[in-house]
Amino acid sequence: MIQTIYYKDDAVYVLDQNQLPAKVHYEKCLTYQEIAVAIKELKVRGAPLIGVTAAFGMALAIQNFNNEKNLLAFYEEVESVMRSTRPTAVNLFWAIRRMRRVFETHLGLDQVELAKIMLREAQDMYEEDLRINIDMGEYGQTLLGSDSQVMTICNAGALATCGHGTALGVIRAAHARKHIQRVWACETRPVLQGSRLTIWELMEDKIPVTLITDNMAASVLRDKNITAVIAGADRIAANGDTANKIGTYGLAVLARQHGVPFYIAAPLSTIDMSISNGEEIPIEERNQDEVRMVRGTYITVPEVDVFNPAFDVTPHEFIDGIITEKGIIQAPYIKGLKAVFSEGGDV
Amino acid sequence: MIQTIYYKDDAVYVLDQNQLPAKVHYEKCLTYQEIAVAIKELKVRGAPLIGVTAAFGMALAIQNFNNEKNLLAFYEEVESVMRSTRPTAVNLFWAIRRMRRVFETHLGLDQVELAKIMLREAQDMYEEDLRINIDMGEYGQTLLGSDSQVMTICNAGALATCGHGTALGVIRAAHARKHIQRVWACETRPVLQGSRLTIWELMEDKIPVTLITDNMAASVLRDKNITAVIAGADRIAANGDTANKIGTYGLAVLARQHGVPFYIAAPLSTIDMSISNGEEIPIEERNQDEVRMVRGTYITVPEVDVFNPAFDVTPHEFIDGIITEKGIIQAPYIKGLKAVFSEGGDV
Repeated sequence: MIQTIYYKDDAVYVLDQNQLPAKVHYEKCLTYQEIAVAIKELKVRGAPLIGVTAAFGMALAIQNFNNEKNLLAFYEEVESVMRSTRPTAVNLFWAIRRMRRVFETHLGLDQVELAKIMLREAQDMYEEDLRINIDMGEYGQTLLGSDSQVMTICNAGALATCGHGTALGVIRAAHARKHIQRVWACETRPVLQGSRLTIWELMEDKIPVTLITDNMAASVLRDKNITAVIAGADRIAANGDTANKIGTYGLAVLARQHGVPFYIAAPLSTIDMSISNGEEIPIEERNQDEVRMVRGTYITVPEVDVFNPAFDVTPHEFIDGIITEKGIIQAPYIKGLKAVFSEGGDV
Repeated sequence: MIQTIYYKDDAVYVLDQNQLPAKVHYEKCLTYQEIAVAIKELKVRGAPLIGVTAAFGMALAIQNFNNEKNLLAFYEEVESVMRSTRPTAVNLFWAIRRMRRVFETHLGLDQVELAKIMLREAQDMYEEDLRINIDMGEYGQTLLGSDSQVMTICNAGALATCGHGTALGVIRAAHARKHIQRVWACETRPVLQGSRLTIWELMEDKIPVTLITDNMAASVLRDKNITAVIAGADRIAANGDTANKIGTYGLAVLARQHGVPFYIAAPLSTIDMSISNGEEIPIEERNQDEVRMVRGTYITVPEVDVFNPAFDVTPHEFIDGIITEKGIIQAPYIKGLKAVFSEGGDV
């Protein structure tokens, strides 16, 4: 199984996803600042994994605290650095809140004890995320019949999580039942998470997959008997509007046009009940060179103006179901999402 | 003005578009076989330019004919090599037919005279294509109001033709009237004709342009007040179904979803009245490495399965107008296209 992050001998090791698939290399992070840079530079990416990685960063921060400042002020600074890494993925803010509760509860302890407890919490989050993805996969696979051909975008896989994956977790669960005929992976420009990461992890697991460029999705949806499109999510609003990798919205429109069901797979930590709809989701715009260059080489006029939003918002009307670890939520989402957060209830 | 092809001292020089925008280099072709390779390898591309380039190739063939074989058999061999280069662009077959008429009419002449006449015909086709594009631009610009923001895909520009361009010819004509606020160019994976060619030629002409990846089109169409989408064409069936660069069909669906008019700009030589609809258009599938590699570097697992159709077909229902050198044709296309080919009539 792919390990995306681990702690060993006072350091956090993150699988550097920018080097995949050419090289499997773990980057050693000794400080929370190094963790923040790894998130910002997409060495670590995927909403669930960003959350857990930030939690490990908070634990590192306490471990390294040198008493030069006030601990509370220091912790706020750490949170602020983490918050500034990626604005869209809400799991980041969820993880920061969860770590703060642990921090505040154990504030009286000495630093070594507090650091241990913070680290334990990050490790718990890691293990919980893996279990969540396995549950999500079991629920989600019920949506796929035998001989499924599933299209996906970006990487909502083991590499985006602490194992198994969200959208790819559903595909893995269906594959275990021999229900996957083929996965169609959109390469996902500009950062190519599809061709670099999804292809790599599906081929490692011997799940049949075909790579296409993003602009081939329409004709593949028309001509290749695609039975479902499944994507991950970076933030889901209370009404079901979903921010995910740029291109997801277009894929949802095209799926609808061709009568193909479009599903989102995401843990509850991706759902932001504090915002009523997708218009309130901040969309990160990234460096223009991500579009101008591939692998360090310019593929266009270097001075060209570029628009580079990392995400788009798919309105809930285009979503045929949100697959969570508590079950599949269907429209009306405003009711279904509220229910799943209410005490004890399954969806 | 950009010269895409010219003849000098017994040789045909083609602008090697694979090297753009990094380098402006003309490749010297001494034989028709070299011309065929240049077309196949996309050094020369764009339906109108492919046609004219093939015509220059036929002229070169006659010029170099060495009397080892029967001239008629030789000429058929030349045609067969040319025909096998790219199956989708119908201008290629149109140009081959036109050159055959000239060849047959002057078959009695000696070789030097025949070669001269063939060359003159190719040069006439070059000059006609330029005039056609200018006329197309004048008709097409009437569809664009002031402050137009036009999205385009691939390169339907001066580089795809003998100057001015089809879709970009319309944009140039509107820009001359100060009606273009901004062009949004889709990069057009896998071969990146958008980022390499369209960006280069629009920036050379100082027309404001923003580059996006193909999967950003949906959110740009939703959020950026796009007033029209204009694409070129590789073959148009009698009912208006249009084959063009892969991604065009998806763009047409997305334009319709957002209430943005979608136009095709193409000369009459792109219209194939011999086929009734788009299902009869052969779609070229190209080498899988075009998707696996960018600029000679693998961007995915080298062994991955790839689907790489170079074109898709946009059904006529999604097309709001076909801009030709004889005027703008609107639905029902089956009637309008027939009319434009009937004697003397304007559309």
